[in-house]
Amino acid sequence: MHGVVAARGHLDREMLMTDATAQAPDFVSRHIGPADEDLAAMLQTIGSDSLATLLDKAIPSVIRSRAALLLDAADSEPAVIAELRAKAARNTVLTSMIGLGYYGTHTPGVIRRNILENPAWYTAYTPYQPEISQGRLEALLNFQTVVSDLTGLATAGASLLDEATAVAEAMTLMRRGSKVDKDAVLLVDSQLMPQSIAVTRTRATPLGIELVVADLHDVSDADGLRAAAGDREVFGVVVQYPGADGRIVDWTALASAAHEAGALVTAAADLLALTLLTPPGEWGADIAVGTSQRFGVPMGFGGPHAGYISVRSGLERTMPGRLVGVSVDADGAPAYRLALQTREQHIRREKATSNICTAQVLLAVMASMYAVYHGPQGLRRIALETHAKARALHDALEAGGVEVIPEHFFDTVTAVVAGRADAVVAAALERGINVWKVDADHVSVSVDETTTDAELAAVATAFGVNAPTPEVAEPQWPSELVRTSDYLEHPVFHSHHSETAMLRYLRALADRDYALDRGMIPLGSCTMKLNATTEMEAVTWPEFANLHPFAPAAQSEGIRELIHDLEGWLCTITGYDAVSLQPNAGSQGEFAGLLAIHAYHQANGDHERKICLIPASAHGTNAASAVMAGMKVVVVKTAATGEVDLDDLKQKIKEHGETLAAIMVTYPSTHGVFEDTITELSSLVHEAGGQVYVDGANLNALIGHAQPGDFGGDVSHLNLHKTFCIPHGGGGPGVGPVAVRSHLAPYLPNHPLSQEAGPATGVGPISAAPFGSASILPISWAYVRLMGGAGLTKATETAVLSANYVAARLKEHYPVLYGGTDGLIAHECILDLRGITKDTGVTVDDVAKRLIDYGFHAPTMSFPVAGTLMVEPTESESLAELDRFCDAMIAIREEIQAVADGTVAVADSVLRGAPHTAQSMAGEWDHPYTRSEATYPAGVDPLRKYWPPVRRIDGAYGDRNLICSCPSPEAFED
Amino acid sequence: MHGVVAARGHLDREMLMTDATAQAPDFVSRHIGPADEDLAAMLQTIGSDSLATLLDKAIPSVIRSRAALLLDAADSEPAVIAELRAKAARNTVLTSMIGLGYYGTHTPGVIRRNILENPAWYTAYTPYQPEISQGRLEALLNFQTVVSDLTGLATAGASLLDEATAVAEAMTLMRRGSKVDKDAVLLVDSQLMPQSIAVTRTRATPLGIELVVADLHDVSDADGLRAAAGDREVFGVVVQYPGADGRIVDWTALASAAHEAGALVTAAADLLALTLLTPPGEWGADIAVGTSQRFGVPMGFGGPHAGYISVRSGLERTMPGRLVGVSVDADGAPAYRLALQTREQHIRREKATSNICTAQVLLAVMASMYAVYHGPQGLRRIALETHAKARALHDALEAGGVEVIPEHFFDTVTAVVAGRADAVVAAALERGINVWKVDADHVSVSVDETTTDAELAAVATAFGVNAPTPEVAEPQWPSELVRTSDYLEHPVFHSHHSETAMLRYLRALADRDYALDRGMIPLGSCTMKLNATTEMEAVTWPEFANLHPFAPAAQSEGIRELIHDLEGWLCTITGYDAVSLQPNAGSQGEFAGLLAIHAYHQANGDHERKICLIPASAHGTNAASAVMAGMKVVVVKTAATGEVDLDDLKQKIKEHGETLAAIMVTYPSTHGVFEDTITELSSLVHEAGGQVYVDGANLNALIGHAQPGDFGGDVSHLNLHKTFCIPHGGGGPGVGPVAVRSHLAPYLPNHPLSQEAGPATGVGPISAAPFGSASILPISWAYVRLMGGAGLTKATETAVLSANYVAARLKEHYPVLYGGTDGLIAHECILDLRGITKDTGVTVDDVAKRLIDYGFHAPTMSFPVAGTLMVEPTESESLAELDRFCDAMIAIREEIQAVADGTVAVADSVLRGAPHTAQSMAGEWDHPYTRSEATYPAGVDPLRKYWPPVRRIDGAYGDRNLICSCPSPEAFED
Repeated sequence: MHGVVAARGHLDREMLMTDATAQAPDFVSRHIGPADEDLAAMLQTIGSDSLATLLDKAIPSVIRSRAALLLDAADSEPAVIAELRAKAARNTVLTSMIGLGYYGTHTPGVIRRNILENPAWYTAYTPYQPEISQGRLEALLNFQTVVSDLTGLATAGASLLDEATAVAEAMTLMRRGSKVDKDAVLLVDSQLMPQSIAVTRTRATPLGIELVVADLHDVSDADGLRAAAGDREVFGVVVQYPGADGRIVDWTALASAAHEAGALVTAAADLLALTLLTPPGEWGADIAVGTSQRFGVPMGFGGPHAGYISVRSGLERTMPGRLVGVSVDADGAPAYRLALQTREQHIRREKATSNICTAQVLLAVMASMYAVYHGPQGLRRIALETHAKARALHDALEAGGVEVIPEHFFDTVTAVVAGRADAVVAAALERGINVWKVDADHVSVSVDETTTDAELAAVATAFGVNAPTPEVAEPQWPSELVRTSDYLEHPVFHSHHSETAMLRYLRALADRDYALDRGMIPLGSCTMKLNATTEMEAVTWPEFANLHPFAPAAQSEGIRELIHDLEGWLCTITGYDAVSLQPNAGSQGEFAGLLAIHAYHQANGDHERKICLIPASAHGTNAASAVMAGMKVVVVKTAATGEVDLDDLKQKIKEHGETLAAIMVTYPSTHGVFEDTITELSSLVHEAGGQVYVDGANLNALIGHAQPGDFGGDVSHLNLHKTFCIPHGGGGPGVGPVAVRSHLAPYLPNHPLSQEAGPATGVGPISAAPFGSASILPISWAYVRLMGGAGLTKATETAVLSANYVAARLKEHYPVLYGGTDGLIAHECILDLRGITKDTGVTVDDVAKRLIDYGFHAPTMSFPVAGTLMVEPTESESLAELDRFCDAMIAIREEIQAVADGTVAVADSVLRGAPHTAQSMAGEWDHPYTRSEATYPAGVDPLRKYWPPVRRIDGAYGDRNLICSCPSPEAFED
Repeated sequence: MHGVVAARGHLDREMLMTDATAQAPDFVSRHIGPADEDLAAMLQTIGSDSLATLLDKAIPSVIRSRAALLLDAADSEPAVIAELRAKAARNTVLTSMIGLGYYGTHTPGVIRRNILENPAWYTAYTPYQPEISQGRLEALLNFQTVVSDLTGLATAGASLLDEATAVAEAMTLMRRGSKVDKDAVLLVDSQLMPQSIAVTRTRATPLGIELVVADLHDVSDADGLRAAAGDREVFGVVVQYPGADGRIVDWTALASAAHEAGALVTAAADLLALTLLTPPGEWGADIAVGTSQRFGVPMGFGGPHAGYISVRSGLERTMPGRLVGVSVDADGAPAYRLALQTREQHIRREKATSNICTAQVLLAVMASMYAVYHGPQGLRRIALETHAKARALHDALEAGGVEVIPEHFFDTVTAVVAGRADAVVAAALERGINVWKVDADHVSVSVDETTTDAELAAVATAFGVNAPTPEVAEPQWPSELVRTSDYLEHPVFHSHHSETAMLRYLRALADRDYALDRGMIPLGSCTMKLNATTEMEAVTWPEFANLHPFAPAAQSEGIRELIHDLEGWLCTITGYDAVSLQPNAGSQGEFAGLLAIHAYHQANGDHERKICLIPASAHGTNAASAVMAGMKVVVVKTAATGEVDLDDLKQKIKEHGETLAAIMVTYPSTHGVFEDTITELSSLVHEAGGQVYVDGANLNALIGHAQPGDFGGDVSHLNLHKTFCIPHGGGGPGVGPVAVRSHLAPYLPNHPLSQEAGPATGVGPISAAPFGSASILPISWAYVRLMGGAGLTKATETAVLSANYVAARLKEHYPVLYGGTDGLIAHECILDLRGITKDTGVTVDDVAKRLIDYGFHAPTMSFPVAGTLMVEPTESESLAELDRFCDAMIAIREEIQAVADGTVAVADSVLRGAPHTAQSMAGEWDHPYTRSEATYPAGVDPLRKYWPPVRRIDGAYGDRNLICSCPSPEAFED
């Protein structure tokens, strides 16, 4: 039926027949949920007479920027698409046979269309509410099973950011897990991907970890290992498998030697090769890391793709990133949820060894589905065909008198060309193919599933040899390198090989989940706003999707121009002077920002400035990042009003004097308040020689009204997946640009393989790819172009108004925590349930799960204050949806009242019973409330009812009985 | 969870680790549901030892073609996409300002992505089962409301094929509805679109209707009308509003005159213009027709788009095509369903005045959502802006001394250029713009919502005048032309204007429906097979989407090459000599085929050959098409075995002798049987001088094994939306090519505006556009390229095997009707419920609705035999899904047995209660069976449960209380 129908009914003719000179409807009115007449009604509710007045009151005048945001005027959706097409046309998509972790791959159409281009998947949030996330949790469990099976290691996580950062994560995991001395080194094989070496070095330096890079292929005992490490003790060893030059080495002896020496071993391994190669877990690796890019995820000029990590039994509880596991729900049915959440940095804070938060869920889902679609036989066939092409190229080169280095290889051969490298690369380029110049004397070529015979012939011609003739055959490797173990035996990898079956599987999973395409996701601090189709479109265009990150710069003119535009606009918006888009998550942006501060102090000779002040209310990632950047965290108290306690701040500054490096504050605060002390705070820290880091998580409350680079910040990271419309993808991808004032600009990230990526004086790369998750940057670019300065400013105003509207409607029912000037909040509001919990036993969990029955995703739970719910409506929710939410919260308050009144015990209440499934209605009903009260409470439109697939999940049970790969089908039988 | 998991569990290692030389998985294995090992199991069940043996047995040897199907070898999905991109690149997309019913339009991204690119919408079937079609039925009701409101007429249908055929449909409706003499003429204004005049003439001729084309703008009384008609009586008048030359005429006096003379009046009207113009219903039109293309549907080189028709009160029961209406379900809730089904040609057969069946549902849905998204204010604004551009161009031309014809116009101006037409057109073309050469002295230009100022300036330059400067203002038309009435006042047109709200509305509607992305749709004769993503992709590429059908041929090289390829392949596949792709539905293909027969007889001087023999079991469209082609239908009996009764045939041939025109037979028959008498039948008819029309609806059972052009057919129509993978789109678009042997080739359709579209000797156009629904032809093109001859042949084999497998599994439980040689059926099987109904009262309806509870779309009901269900599994369903269906049918048989045994009365049975909604479970339960038995019967995976949004719908109630536009929101309150 006509679903949720606006309450206003028929409009007046005056309103309907607008005057002829009215503007065409623009994107701003598509992005912003409430219509202008709704905004007027909302203003009335909160007692403000205009958006301008509201912002005047809400934002402290001391930080308010009065000038209009100077961006190009907004353009229409078709015009912006045309601009993007013009940029796309300035990219030149050639065939890249560069390898180095990035390969051509065929994304199956059914996967691209039904995941990457489907809002049901890409607008989903991180699955912290597992009851409404069973579909993507199953997909991630499939991913974990793929990684675990292929690497031969017991437990795999649900994705890391990229291969290079995965190596860096493995480094700290090994450091924590090995028993050797603190000054032991990390020993790295020289054929580790160059970007992995560089990123790991960037990560190692502030932690005081030394990297030794050496050729390890001959190491066979503990003495050899020590010798290779320059006579140092070794806590960890990292090898590439196969190596960057293509070489496959049997690392069994090295692994034994390392273990003998008390070190752990990490293999950075190629998943496709592992369908044929003895898996790392079988030759002794403790950890495997890598990328799943070539499992159907386009190269995208470097990202996003899902990095992976898997570990042997015993290390699972120290693994960075998220881990999906199997548990049970209230009816005893199997159910998925994130396992071992206590490892997360928001709990461990400065004790965390990793700061990873946003991961690469959407890409992990795609990669897992690539494996589901092809199955083990299909993957093996792709690997064999790929190997056959490499073998044929190898043979053709040798037959033509060209020496080839690796004896055993999978997909990459390195040819010795004695001074001719430039000429060979140029000859290949002439034929439309990028090959890799290793140095003046060596050229490497990587083939993949997309490589055609014609391309092989062209490469051969570039080398001056005859065309190769691939023939698929079993690899002729020594038997110890040949995989004999099975993989992907679970039925899920054998049941969806026709497109029809695959399509239905994807639909069935999507139908279990709640994403923005169903209704509001009022998550505080996560800014779940519209991810518009026009913004998303360019992502899957071949001109952006099929660029290799290390291809010659001339081929990426369009995307780099787009990056340059976006950097400039972000400077204009934030008031900073320089931006790097390399960080591929907020956590990485934080890390980059703190590294810049660190490098700045170093350059000034302030070597002792290592204290990082962090308010108690900060997001846990802040502390974790500070530690990773080599700083020591000192906590500053939060005042009762939610603001930073300035007295305590002064005390701490005094205490740490010359060792003060920085303060990290979130603005508006994690409490959702515009603190009017921010400039004073900044002055105090600056005067003491410290730098001010303003966490940009809440930038959605500022744009067009205040600029962190102007009101005291020296550096900020932003979250393009919050404020700038990159969808959350179920927990990634994200982009976390770091923005700095000019004095920090020389210390932004750069990249050894791309001069264009950052300043020569930079701190090194912090992501594998020069521009991080480049292929999703068109999303934010389009958002800014579509909104213009005025549109962005209005979005901020609406976001602040919507939050205050929700607060105004709910404050009689739930205490609203904190309020700035005039009692106004910023763009999110905190509902305090602590009193209710104390009086009735009804918890935030109960309310969150009950909201599912009403058709909502829960707000953020117990952050930043335990026992509260934080609501961020954003500007994109319509007044009707805001009201639907407020009505649900008020109805829930009445349900709580029944418990308070003693009418019903909390344990028997509809709140504790929530969420309720359709299936639970079909059987016996032993609740004191009716089925209808449980599943169709007031305000639920039966025609839009969302059914959770499981009841409340027992997380602790799953942690006690950890299962992190696909459970047997029998587990799902009654 | 892992949903429906294949029963086979873990595979043997031998099976998993296939030998290294195995083929890469190709598209054939993605398209065909059962894996090779499943095929073996299925063959075993039916007792055949190979696919080849099965087909040898099933298909009569007399018609069997033994040679392999000679098509290019299949290519991979990426290779086919690359070929399509190459073809796309050979189209030149310029700005077309040609008008004539085709305009530039902005498809909102949210609509394109979530409807046109979303399998939940495009794989749906025609909503004959309304309980599982509420989403698309609501969308179509919105469409009807848009058309009804904008045209000012009481009742609108749910789409026709295009504007030109809509005019032709209006002609027969007026002929039927007017009271004047049989030899009265149709009077047509000379500014009716030229293709509408031509198509209407093609339709009029065989019916003996005379068309008189005249300038009607001055007609003001009945005498004038008669004079304009050459002193003939007039049964109907058709005017274009605004005219093809852009002119807006006040037709009030003409309408009065027509009514006075006993004639009816049809306005072919532009929907966008009607937001500003007095609607036809207010100046006296009885009928309005047109296209909704410019409501967000790309031009697509001519189609598909949704044609529309609306009629004044009193004519609704004679309206052609489908009509959605509101009724109630078993719980009294409002529910949508197709209304007045008794009008359909499958009931009326030769008494039908229209043969339309497949319509343009998917495009009607898009157009309706364009109106929902923009709302009345938005549409009006688009119209005003469009008009402003035309006004500015008009003024610039006049200011530059160029005479402009229309005084009052909306979007089109015709300029007088005295001999310079070619030069002006060429000058515009040089600037990348197509304008229209009316004749040597006139050029017309149409603007639209996409027209930019730069384009206007370029056009002005082509005319040698200064650049126009558009200013939005109210139109300066005489007051009687200015619309004063409101439209689109229903809340649905006011509630979904933000992209977020629109996205959720589309998702909510899609979630109510059952399409191929959820499970099997085993519809006999409708061939609901995979619509692969790779096949669908090119449809939305701008190079195919943005071509004007009347643009210079040089601009459409790529698509015409594709059309040429496809025509050739269809000849190879069918054994015919020539194919026309112009018919945009099967019904139109039939009509074209019969016209060719008619023309052939005429050319041979056989003017009396008008008898068309049609077996009793034929699809109703056959008879309707024959009548439209000027033939007289004579029914031939069907023997008890389901075959055509040859004795009766001989008798009828004898009876009609020299008047025999043709026989129309379906092969394999509508009973799903390969009749071995087909060659004898053909010989008999041929010997009597008749032509053999083989309806290609069941071609999916023949490809690669038999060719209608070879075994006796002179002409066939095919259904690309059945056999060749164009999705059903909820009831359209379709393509119904007509294929003929060489002697009929001169009589294929052609087109007055495109020499390339058909032979000069052709029968005229039967669709508005030269190549019909050209933009969806890449789907079928890709299917053939991806499958190759061997793949298509295997698909046929699998389709036949699957049907026989279902028959074998179900025959113990339900009698299977008909069987050819060896008791085998073709590609569909008929389950006979008549005995069951007689014994128990359980009807086919009960079984069909109960299947919804089990998670299936019902098979075809009561066609071709009342009281039966016809199942066509197609080759795309996996063995697991076939088994799930058979298991459900067997479980339902057990439920029927309980009624047979007297355990439960049929009125109280779970069968009669079906389908059951989730909501019905929540309330009181007064059935003798449990909730669980109702909603989770055996075999239903709770995690894949499909919930119908309504219970069984009372169709008759809705027909008695006809409501065919959006009901008030109050109707949905409890």
